[in-house]
Amino acid sequence: MNYSLLPIGVVHSPFRERFGIPRQPLLVPEAKARLELLAPYNCTEAFAGLEAFSHIWLTFIFHQTMRNQWQPQVRPPRLGGNRRVGLFASRSPFRPNPVGLSVVMLDGISSQQGKVELLLSGIDLLDGTPVLDIKPYIPYADSIPEARSGYATGPPRASKEVRFSKTAEAQLQQRNDAELRRLIIKLLECDPRPAYKNRSRSDRIYGMRLYDFDLKWRVTEDVVEVIELVV
Amino acid sequence: MNYSLLPIGVVHSPFRERFGIPRQPLLVPEAKARLELLAPYNCTEAFAGLEAFSHIWLTFIFHQTMRNQWQPQVRPPRLGGNRRVGLFASRSPFRPNPVGLSVVMLDGISSQQGKVELLLSGIDLLDGTPVLDIKPYIPYADSIPEARSGYATGPPRASKEVRFSKTAEAQLQQRNDAELRRLIIKLLECDPRPAYKNRSRSDRIYGMRLYDFDLKWRVTEDVVEVIELVV
Repeated sequence: MNYSLLPIGVVHSPFRERFGIPRQPLLVPEAKARLELLAPYNCTEAFAGLEAFSHIWLTFIFHQTMRNQWQPQVRPPRLGGNRRVGLFASRSPFRPNPVGLSVVMLDGISSQQGKVELLLSGIDLLDGTPVLDIKPYIPYADSIPEARSGYATGPPRASKEVRFSKTAEAQLQQRNDAELRRLIIKLLECDPRPAYKNRSRSDRIYGMRLYDFDLKWRVTEDVVEVIELVV
Repeated sequence: MNYSLLPIGVVHSPFRERFGIPRQPLLVPEAKARLELLAPYNCTEAFAGLEAFSHIWLTFIFHQTMRNQWQPQVRPPRLGGNRRVGLFASRSPFRPNPVGLSVVMLDGISSQQGKVELLLSGIDLLDGTPVLDIKPYIPYADSIPEARSGYATGPPRASKEVRFSKTAEAQLQQRNDAELRRLIIKLLECDPRPAYKNRSRSDRIYGMRLYDFDLKWRVTEDVVEVIELVV
């Protein structure tokens, strides 16, 4: 028997492609998004009391990675991208049911002219992500600090210093957006390059789509240099 | 757009009806279950490495509470059953998408004659629950002990002493099952009676279906008396 599920909301996020998205939620608190509730779920009564919770669970669809085929094993970036583990021992988006699970910070609930939105931060979700369910985070049930966690022993380290080229610096100044600067630094200091690619070539230019621009950068041994923001 | 999801497994649990099930997972570690993987997911490769995790997330279908209608507000037992909160500020099973989320303990993985099962404890799931996804619990991402949690401030207290009638005692002795005794005590000491019902009548007999029997009990001020196990 199969189950037919309908989105109750959609995420509006700065992340316009998978590459560069933080690998777990809450790693980058500067990553903000709005979750717009679709009718008939755009009623504030259904969210009464939720603002007393600091964090919420989102159950969502990995809408850009849905496939007809699934592979029983994957190579998590955490293991350098060359060791395999079982798909169900990973959080890979390529799953038989393309269902994701993220805990994010709830910064507020906005209701204007019939539009109800949850204001979120610490997100790891693509723009356009369809959300199936929203639940409050309950620490006495959900928080298990002593859980044994296999190969995922701690958050990825922020190992790089992030610098801005003169061009990038001027572009950021023009935007006059201190939050955007912090977001870029937080995204790049964790070095989002694919682990399994040859990282020795320092002339390689990487890019990710963020808001309305392409963020371009290169990586040398300890430094990420932001080259420019291409609109 | 709707999404069609297929179960990857099914839960075999002692809980044969909703009444009496612990209100969150892990409250009753004695509550054990097996999660049987359905073909083609009954392959151990897909679970390689999972045994290094002590806890797993199950995304599942509330198969006994699926409804065509949803109500924007619910009365959580935690609030005495008479105060309303928004549905999405609760973990109620009556949701637009009947999707549940539980973290449970992974005690082992069994593979025999093509049957692959995950051995679980601390479960709050009905027998027959269809499971959509299994993910490892990653404390650095999932454990937020400092999260603010509205009205759900701590686990429900075990407030009652559980005693056994002579009949129930003899029945338990006959079964010679120390685990079953501990499970019954843990389930009843939290007093699973509906909060909104009049609790003053101490002659009322309650029952829940557990394994192959009906567990019958009554409640006086501080004591739960197990009356009998009716096969």
